[in-house]
Amino acid sequence: MSKPLLQIALDSLTLEKAVADAKQAENVVEIIEIGTILAFAEGMKAVSTLKALHPNHIIVCDLKTTDAGAILAKMAFDAGADWLTVSAAAHPATKVACKKVADDFNAANPDLKVKKEIQIEIYGNWTFEDAKEWVELGVTQAIYHRSRDAELLGKGWMSEDLEQMKHLEEIGLELSITGGIVPEDIHLFKEIKKAKAFIAGRALVGDKGTETAMAIRTELEKYW
Amino acid sequence: MSKPLLQIALDSLTLEKAVADAKQAENVVEIIEIGTILAFAEGMKAVSTLKALHPNHIIVCDLKTTDAGAILAKMAFDAGADWLTVSAAAHPATKVACKKVADDFNAANPDLKVKKEIQIEIYGNWTFEDAKEWVELGVTQAIYHRSRDAELLGKGWMSEDLEQMKHLEEIGLELSITGGIVPEDIHLFKEIKKAKAFIAGRALVGDKGTETAMAIRTELEKYW
Repeated sequence: MSKPLLQIALDSLTLEKAVADAKQAENVVEIIEIGTILAFAEGMKAVSTLKALHPNHIIVCDLKTTDAGAILAKMAFDAGADWLTVSAAAHPATKVACKKVADDFNAANPDLKVKKEIQIEIYGNWTFEDAKEWVELGVTQAIYHRSRDAELLGKGWMSEDLEQMKHLEEIGLELSITGGIVPEDIHLFKEIKKAKAFIAGRALVGDKGTETAMAIRTELEKYW
Repeated sequence: MSKPLLQIALDSLTLEKAVADAKQAENVVEIIEIGTILAFAEGMKAVSTLKALHPNHIIVCDLKTTDAGAILAKMAFDAGADWLTVSAAAHPATKVACKKVADDFNAANPDLKVKKEIQIEIYGNWTFEDAKEWVELGVTQAIYHRSRDAELLGKGWMSEDLEQMKHLEEIGLELSITGGIVPEDIHLFKEIKKAKAFIAGRALVGDKGTETAMAIRTELEKYW
């Protein structure tokens, strides 16, 4: 059983802040994510810059791709993304298009240290039948989270979340888990054996960022 | 009954191509959209540059906002967007957050020629109950389309699309219609009385772009 990885989501409005935050976190995370906010603020140079600065980290580009899959996937992978998020709400053809770009990229570059992959980001009125379809398309990863806006409304993690995660795991998906992740919450997810990563953003930046990251890692050691 | 507007979606991978395409189309469209591809490629400078070049056009920023509504909406409106797209799959709290940013912006700037608005971009497993909720939130616009990837698979406009559009109109939404729009298809939508805009991208650029735009406008004159 491999231990879940720790992922920092960079969601600043400027690349300058993002590179500083990434530099501070580089020794305590395995995955660096160019969040949707940063990607829309600065464009693909955010991905290429962070890839250049952190060639040995896994780089995630959080486009929540909803349409135009082939173009957006090519753009993100060309810029240096290893993994790309695709919205659960996207048409199946969009998911197929993104998957094909990843597969073609992997076939053309057999020596890649990290294979290009897509991650289905779960939003909207999804069903477990949808999730089975993703697996049939060859997708192995999904992202489960509380909506950031729901989180702002004070909505906590619920037993329903855990049940859904377990079911998604049974269907065959490795999950990255996000939405206001703090060290004290990690134990809640201990039954999610195939948790791929925990994603945190603001918790990992600022004065207490490193301390919080280490506290999360201690919890991961404890439960996986 | 007001006539539908014509909107060009700029989905190039570079700002240089986008400004050239917009310049060519400026006299035949009322609305200029920074498409998701362009926004992710170049960031918010794509919005601010096109707004600076076309201050008298309506500027749409197609973020398909799925989360972090307050931040993304503020970013897009500050950059000069008049209208912002929000994914139907977003949590209701995200839609509320985007709407509030628009409302606050309008309240603080009573002399705006074009009010800031959000447009719900219809993707995923949506229902008419969802659409009623959007209207209850104060949303007046939605975007109806064929998925670009579905379109690439050859999926045409169907009577089911028309029925759904009519129902959405009854619920109280003005619709922008998109997905491979060509002049020959415009008559299909003549029963959509509150059609707000038709959106085309590649059809409006290149050698035949102006001719195609004029042909669409001729059809709009005929049916509305």
